[in-house]
Amino acid sequence: MTKTFDVSPLLRSDLPPAALKWTGFPKYNFVGGHNDADSVPVADLVAAATRVLNREGSTLSMYGLHSGPLGYRPLREFLADKLARDAGIRCSPDEILITSGSLQGLDLVNSVFVGPGDAVIVEEMTYAGTITRLQRMGARIVGVPVDAQGLSAHALRSALEALRAEGVRPKFIYTIPTVQNPTATVMPEARRREILALSTEFGVPIFEDECYADLVWDGERPQALRGMVDDDQVVHIGSFSKSIAPALRLGYIVASWALMSRILPMKTDGGSGALEQMVLAEYCREHFTPHVAALRRTLRGKAEALMAALRARFGNAVEFEDPAGGIFLWVKFPATVDTTRLAQLALQAGVAINPGAEWMTDMQAGKVRARICFAHSPAENIREGIGVLAEVCHREFGVPVREAKGHR
Amino acid sequence: MTKTFDVSPLLRSDLPPAALKWTGFPKYNFVGGHNDADSVPVADLVAAATRVLNREGSTLSMYGLHSGPLGYRPLREFLADKLARDAGIRCSPDEILITSGSLQGLDLVNSVFVGPGDAVIVEEMTYAGTITRLQRMGARIVGVPVDAQGLSAHALRSALEALRAEGVRPKFIYTIPTVQNPTATVMPEARRREILALSTEFGVPIFEDECYADLVWDGERPQALRGMVDDDQVVHIGSFSKSIAPALRLGYIVASWALMSRILPMKTDGGSGALEQMVLAEYCREHFTPHVAALRRTLRGKAEALMAALRARFGNAVEFEDPAGGIFLWVKFPATVDTTRLAQLALQAGVAINPGAEWMTDMQAGKVRARICFAHSPAENIREGIGVLAEVCHREFGVPVREAKGHR
Repeated sequence: MTKTFDVSPLLRSDLPPAALKWTGFPKYNFVGGHNDADSVPVADLVAAATRVLNREGSTLSMYGLHSGPLGYRPLREFLADKLARDAGIRCSPDEILITSGSLQGLDLVNSVFVGPGDAVIVEEMTYAGTITRLQRMGARIVGVPVDAQGLSAHALRSALEALRAEGVRPKFIYTIPTVQNPTATVMPEARRREILALSTEFGVPIFEDECYADLVWDGERPQALRGMVDDDQVVHIGSFSKSIAPALRLGYIVASWALMSRILPMKTDGGSGALEQMVLAEYCREHFTPHVAALRRTLRGKAEALMAALRARFGNAVEFEDPAGGIFLWVKFPATVDTTRLAQLALQAGVAINPGAEWMTDMQAGKVRARICFAHSPAENIREGIGVLAEVCHREFGVPVREAKGHR
Repeated sequence: MTKTFDVSPLLRSDLPPAALKWTGFPKYNFVGGHNDADSVPVADLVAAATRVLNREGSTLSMYGLHSGPLGYRPLREFLADKLARDAGIRCSPDEILITSGSLQGLDLVNSVFVGPGDAVIVEEMTYAGTITRLQRMGARIVGVPVDAQGLSAHALRSALEALRAEGVRPKFIYTIPTVQNPTATVMPEARRREILALSTEFGVPIFEDECYADLVWDGERPQALRGMVDDDQVVHIGSFSKSIAPALRLGYIVASWALMSRILPMKTDGGSGALEQMVLAEYCREHFTPHVAALRRTLRGKAEALMAALRARFGNAVEFEDPAGGIFLWVKFPATVDTTRLAQLALQAGVAINPGAEWMTDMQAGKVRARICFAHSPAENIREGIGVLAEVCHREFGVPVREAKGHR
């Protein structure tokens, strides 16, 4: 019998744990940032794919098409117009880099700024993927509280002063101002000005992540922080994952050439997927705005179904704010509940939720919170799933004290 | 006047130099691994896109479609069949990971094995992108000579013995056995067995890169090294960039679950582009084999045009072997020529070639070599471009001694 060649002694010693095999999606899938399947504009994407491929398909023979490393030019032109219209950002198409999702935008910006031991300021409640990335890079993560208007200016001042007293200059302030992840708030203009003033006073740039910004319910959004400055005091990233479809893997970075020229050499992937770029540029020109308006209505309906289900099954035992938009709800449980344990047990019962500990810089504080995504599941599935969650929570933690009256 | 916020003091100090602005392609573009524009199967890609999107487009709403993190299952099923048929690799679709080009395959495999100071064995003449990646990772690159049959077994033995005497166990032997980059040789079966035996004897796994393997002119290729073992003694990567189109950014890793489960957590991109995966799976089922057969004929014609142009303009001043397939020619110049300087001057004259120093672990030895790609340019453009190259070379280095007779 042939001895199996064992490569494990040769692997690096600092690898993450081995992956588990994928076994499909949970029945009640309230994680992952997936979107509403019926909202994918299939027919219009087919039409766009047909037109653009017939017109330009031969350019697939070149790395970078005929547009170079910043990405497919018509998509960057669409984005420059869209950002001006929706985000109040004035930039040229050559100040936009198309990335493989905003995840790659995160990675690229981090890669030029952050080294082991470097301090980075983030919102105390923030995107779990940002926390894990910064941890893997050995960064010193400084979490700053948020309130109903987003990142707290006075708490940010305190954090910056404390770091200055240590002689530490953080690399940037990472903020998700428009449909904050996970709290779903929108930072109003006045708060943005305060945050910018602190950035100027302390000489710390801002890394602005607006990947959910298209999903504000009423379509009204304050000017992006990037739009309020003329230069790289603010680096901005965005995404098409939430507005069109996450599997496409398309996002973008907005930066002036001084910074972009340092970011580009870190993007060593030979370009982001060309088909997505071509099809989206073709599709978005005509369809983006009405598509997203319809999507918001759909998502708002699901958000309301989730909130109704939580009120029906948990009553006053949980707290949450109406989200300003987006795809998730940030829910606070009583102190007796450990949401990490709740998430484990719920998953066994087919319900997937995000434990708050993964979404907070203070993991302990996160143990009473959970992020529950609503974009993917149909309303009936949301109702059933929250019902199952309530049963699990009641059995393990005695919360809700008694099953709230209401439909199962 | 507003002072510009200068982020440069906050950037990491170890960044690559700033990128230059992209100014379009050179007139005679003999670099970059681009492909033949007319060979892109546009009509069939449109048909495939239409069918697959109409059938499954709503699955774009999920990260990973309905297939999980290994990638779109029908594409992995196509690949499992294709690898069995073309490469003699027996693997299940769940031993295949779809990557964003084989570049990501390179990065992922490197990321689980290689740390600063780790020794990695590569062919002395190898893919420039591999050299730069390993350098950036701080690896100790050990180059081993190649001959007409690829990686030299006796030179590999010497290298392994020397490392063993130092108490060093290299992480892997990186080899491009089928249409080697840049020498375009094909490693015959007997040599593969020798290399495998050395891998077994010294306990060093093989990292096999077959991204050009579909482009062997006569379609005959020896069994992949991966096919000659049952386990992760060989990790295998491949690509669709050379067979279909580089801008699509689709490649794959073949590894058993023991190793794949360690690689997967390093792929933190939310999935590779779904459109490309869906369209290619749909297209390739029917069309891959005849498409590639036609493409090989086209590429062979261009290879012959390049070789004829070199003989016509340089005569005996340069040496090259007939490539067994692929998209490039590896050309040796006389010792009086510095191909790094030649490449700089030629670029000013509109001709882009790859200086050999970037394709050899011994950069000095590379100064008399150049890699010249032929896949993209039409034959007439090849002839003209080589004419310009000869003029530049003659002017700067006196080579060729006199312009060879022949058409301009």
